Amino acid sequence: MTSQPEDLNILMARHKAGYALPREFYTSRAMFDQDIARVWNRNWIWVGHESQIPEPGDYFLFDYGPESLIIVRDREGAVRAHLNVCRHRGSRVCTEGAGKARVFVCPYHAWTYELTGELRAGREMGPDFDPAKWGLLPAQVILFQGMILVCPSDEAPPLADALDALAPLTAPFGFEDLKVVHEAHYPVPANWKLAVENYLECYHCAPAHQEYARSHTLKSPQQMAALLPAMQERSVAAGLPTTELNMSGADAIAPGADVYYRRYPLFDGYQTGSRSGVPMAPLLGSLQDFDGGATDVSLGILNYFLVYSDHLVGYRFVPRDVQETDIQVVWMVRKDAEEGRDYTADELTWLWHVTSQDDERIIRHNQAGVNSNFFQPGPLAEMEWAINDFYEFYKKMNGVP
Amino acid sequence: MTSQPEDLNILMARHKAGYALPREFYTSRAMFDQDIARVWNRNWIWVGHESQIPEPGDYFLFDYGPESLIIVRDREGAVRAHLNVCRHRGSRVCTEGAGKARVFVCPYHAWTYELTGELRAGREMGPDFDPAKWGLLPAQVILFQGMILVCPSDEAPPLADALDALAPLTAPFGFEDLKVVHEAHYPVPANWKLAVENYLECYHCAPAHQEYARSHTLKSPQQMAALLPAMQERSVAAGLPTTELNMSGADAIAPGADVYYRRYPLFDGYQTGSRSGVPMAPLLGSLQDFDGGATDVSLGILNYFLVYSDHLVGYRFVPRDVQETDIQVVWMVRKDAEEGRDYTADELTWLWHVTSQDDERIIRHNQAGVNSNFFQPGPLAEMEWAINDFYEFYKKMNGVP
Amino acid sequence: MTSQPEDLNILMARHKAGYALPREFYTSRAMFDQDIARVWNRNWIWVGHESQIPEPGDYFLFDYGPESLIIVRDREGAVRAHLNVCRHRGSRVCTEGAGKARVFVCPYHAWTYELTGELRAGREMGPDFDPAKWGLLPAQVILFQGMILVCPSDEAPPLADALDALAPLTAPFGFEDLKVVHEAHYPVPANWKLAVENYLECYHCAPAHQEYARSHTLKSPQQMAALLPAMQERSVAAGLPTTELNMSGADAIAPGADVYYRRYPLFDGYQTGSRSGVPMAPLLGSLQDFDGGATDVSLGILNYFLVYSDHLVGYRFVPRDVQETDIQVVWMVRKDAEEGRDYTADELTWLWHVTSQDDERIIRHNQAGVNSNFFQPGPLAEMEWAINDFYEFYKKMNGVP
Repeated sequence: MTSQPEDLNILMARHKAGYALPREFYTSRAMFDQDIARVWNRNWIWVGHESQIPEPGDYFLFDYGPESLIIVRDREGAVRAHLNVCRHRGSRVCTEGAGKARVFVCPYHAWTYELTGELRAGREMGPDFDPAKWGLLPAQVILFQGMILVCPSDEAPPLADALDALAPLTAPFGFEDLKVVHEAHYPVPANWKLAVENYLECYHCAPAHQEYARSHTLKSPQQMAALLPAMQERSVAAGLPTTELNMSGADAIAPGADVYYRRYPLFDGYQTGSRSGVPMAPLLGSLQDFDGGATDVSLGILNYFLVYSDHLVGYRFVPRDVQETDIQVVWMVRKDAEEGRDYTADELTWLWHVTSQDDERIIRHNQAGVNSNFFQPGPLAEMEWAINDFYEFYKKMNGVP
Repeated sequence: MTSQPEDLNILMARHKAGYALPREFYTSRAMFDQDIARVWNRNWIWVGHESQIPEPGDYFLFDYGPESLIIVRDREGAVRAHLNVCRHRGSRVCTEGAGKARVFVCPYHAWTYELTGELRAGREMGPDFDPAKWGLLPAQVILFQGMILVCPSDEAPPLADALDALAPLTAPFGFEDLKVVHEAHYPVPANWKLAVENYLECYHCAPAHQEYARSHTLKSPQQMAALLPAMQERSVAAGLPTTELNMSGADAIAPGADVYYRRYPLFDGYQTGSRSGVPMAPLLGSLQDFDGGATDVSLGILNYFLVYSDHLVGYRFVPRDVQETDIQVVWMVRKDAEEGRDYTADELTWLWHVTSQDDERIIRHNQAGVNSNFFQPGPLAEMEWAINDFYEFYKKMNGVP
Repeated sequence: MTSQPEDLNILMARHKAGYALPREFYTSRAMFDQDIARVWNRNWIWVGHESQIPEPGDYFLFDYGPESLIIVRDREGAVRAHLNVCRHRGSRVCTEGAGKARVFVCPYHAWTYELTGELRAGREMGPDFDPAKWGLLPAQVILFQGMILVCPSDEAPPLADALDALAPLTAPFGFEDLKVVHEAHYPVPANWKLAVENYLECYHCAPAHQEYARSHTLKSPQQMAALLPAMQERSVAAGLPTTELNMSGADAIAPGADVYYRRYPLFDGYQTGSRSGVPMAPLLGSLQDFDGGATDVSLGILNYFLVYSDHLVGYRFVPRDVQETDIQVVWMVRKDAEEGRDYTADELTWLWHVTSQDDERIIRHNQAGVNSNFFQPGPLAEMEWAINDFYEFYKKMNGVP
């Protein structure tokens, strides 16, 4: 059933704190369109890493829902983001997913834009036409230790302020010196919010992720607590702070300006998220040793990272349609590591490849059940606390006071 | 054009008795969603036969529209039906189409349900959580001579009462001693109501079903009437009542509690619905002989059966989407018959396989034409009387007084 | 986001003259349904040429959106058009794309229609049934020099009056003596209006159509003007009038009764739209020589033609869904020309095949960009004047005063 926008407040009011959201949030096209307009277009999206566009003119596209962004390094070396929509009659300006450009020429009528987005010329537009008014619409950009975050809206959450608090915690990992080893997309026939919710809780880890559960204590708060002190000792020795930072949900400085940092222990014998527990790549940043831990990091509300001592895995849940989402996983190692000698992509990607395949399956079954007229949102477990925070954020983005 | 729910009354009012329904009933997504909620979820659906789940723990799923039901025999031997939706966050609980289970474990967070639907335990749900409140939602079940009928709603039509009147008529066929030989699905790109309407009239049989029309007199009321007395003599000799029971449409005890029974003659030379007229399987139930007849039976408004002397064919028209329907055909013989010796599936299924293929084609063309803005509902023929009854039922389910 | 019909006036009001239309015109299903009902069903559609149905009983179907038309030559030799929707329960009556028929028999219940559309008989409809009331709904037909135009609505624009003005200009081409050599369909995932707009302007020709731009001056108003006088001298010598006729847009006698005729020069060395410039087929009609020109002709608002001295290319932009359009291109030569001897289809179709492939690509990118929430309609160039006219027509068809 199509929920019309005017029903949104009624639906929001029907949501009971501590319970899942009502069905329509995951089934309605109008709601999906609003999710793009109100959530995705007004929040910070992690689109990639500076190492992907090292030289002036290097660019790549990032697409979600009906939107497309051009991320480019300009002649002055600054990273910029533009809406990939011609100001004339709306064509996509850039149609290659990545490349090197001197200017961006619209394939339709050859309106030509500088790397900065300025319109160089509108061919045959007559004497009254002022190119200065018709540059590509800009998106805002934050560079955080090499990570590129973009927000298409003017009214972006004040994430930069929150990142100041996070910066010293992530500094030892040397994010700015990473490179991308592999990126995989796992399309799932489900609403993007179900994919985010799945990432936000480890209540499902024990029953659903056999491989992950073997090495990661997050599935069991009790076991995690038991192994934490020993890991923290090793963390300190390795040069990692043990601070936990939770400026998310009710503790965020503003909705969408959430940041989160927590390092937790792997089971004994596991130095990183590898099949056997042995290291897979050189130590990140300034780390002195493996501490047998893994760090959960959030940058804003849409971007999630898992940082091991020797590699990083980034997660995004990109909406394509009401019930079509791309789970995008990016694996990174330090940029001076050499494939074959220092790491192999197959080994590095094994754990989160099999885990993402599990997730695709369980999220798909979740959506199928939620589609039922008989679905009634049930109570969340204590281990699902972060989903509550996500709902609170979501409701605030939709104007619920 | 999407008809919104509020337009329903206007559309209903536009329907002229004795004519086809207006276009929007077959084209609107909102109308489809209402058909699931108001018609399918509140009526009895024939999902199968007890012989498919002989032992405790045996189960199968039945899916329609966005819904999924688990039909299972519990430890006490009772047949039960549950909504296949986890009470936690809505995942499908059971994801295999059929099998044997000791309990149903949700694949997401391992909430575990007994065969009776009771929640055994909600893992890590804290001390205040009361599992007794969170069992699988039950659907109602009627067992009619081995046939399993299910209604997901509390407000089910009083079909059991009507079945009491039908029971003596079908008793000689021994429905409880049948087994399923074959089930075939014929997907058709059309609204489910067009598929039901197609089944409800034999006005199209002569022009559209060459094979069927060769053996079945239903296509011609005159020929049927002429051959009826001779058949009825044979029926009596074979042990079959000749009573006609029409408690459907205006004569139903309540909307959706329709039952119907009529035996009519095949053409001379045909003892059953076979290619050449010869028997294909052992006589059903307590029958003494072939009487050269076939019986139309309806159980409720959504479930249709054709009962020959040696086999039964069951029909369902399962909605998948506004213009996507699964015509499901099930062939049954007496359970002690042996494939190869007493019958062959190929021979048994021939007639209704070719006939269903014809129907797929004509229903598809019907939908294509109804989609036109220029479609105006035309007058029904006398032979299409049962479609009128269906419309009356349909309007009552939608609240038309 | 689905724009409801009631929003149409608001959207219309948001359109700024001289700018592209707002996004919703290209993205909303409700708007698409209205485009079929208000624009396509109430305008003249070029469906083909009399030579395609030379004998009584010859017919072909023309489908668009949810509609289907039967175009047939009746026993008296008249060309007729009928809605392909049975008056009984709405089935498509004719299911073969083209053929020869004595009558049209509905495949469902065998209602049988004469070539004139009259219902011959409604089988088993009882004594009160009057077949005279249940003929196929007629569409109006205009034959213009062999071209068949059809309008399903009673309220058709007065195109015939406008065609009287056009007739002497096209007469030398002998349209009535053409035959179809090839018809190609280029499906494009875009709204039909974007495909029409693409055809209506040559502002994109220079950047997007390398092959076309080599031979056609339309891409450059300056070059066209420079070469025009010399061509017009050759036109007169060849027997072609040099008049321009612009009874379109604000100058049409009524919305949808637009006609347009303008001959413009090819570049020197090009006698026709061939790869090298050399002729590809015998001169059309009464032409005495190649004049190195090409004529743009519009018949109504939906049908476009490009007439060279030796062949004609017809264009239609057939809506299938909100963002699914069939670009249909038809190549014609004089009917006494012989394949192999006088022309080859490969050579003849080369230019507009490659050009249509280009168009498919740029229209697709246009739609992708227009889908963005950030799309803002931009200013049209002088060379895009005909798009403005199309918008004016479009708004008038939708009731804007």
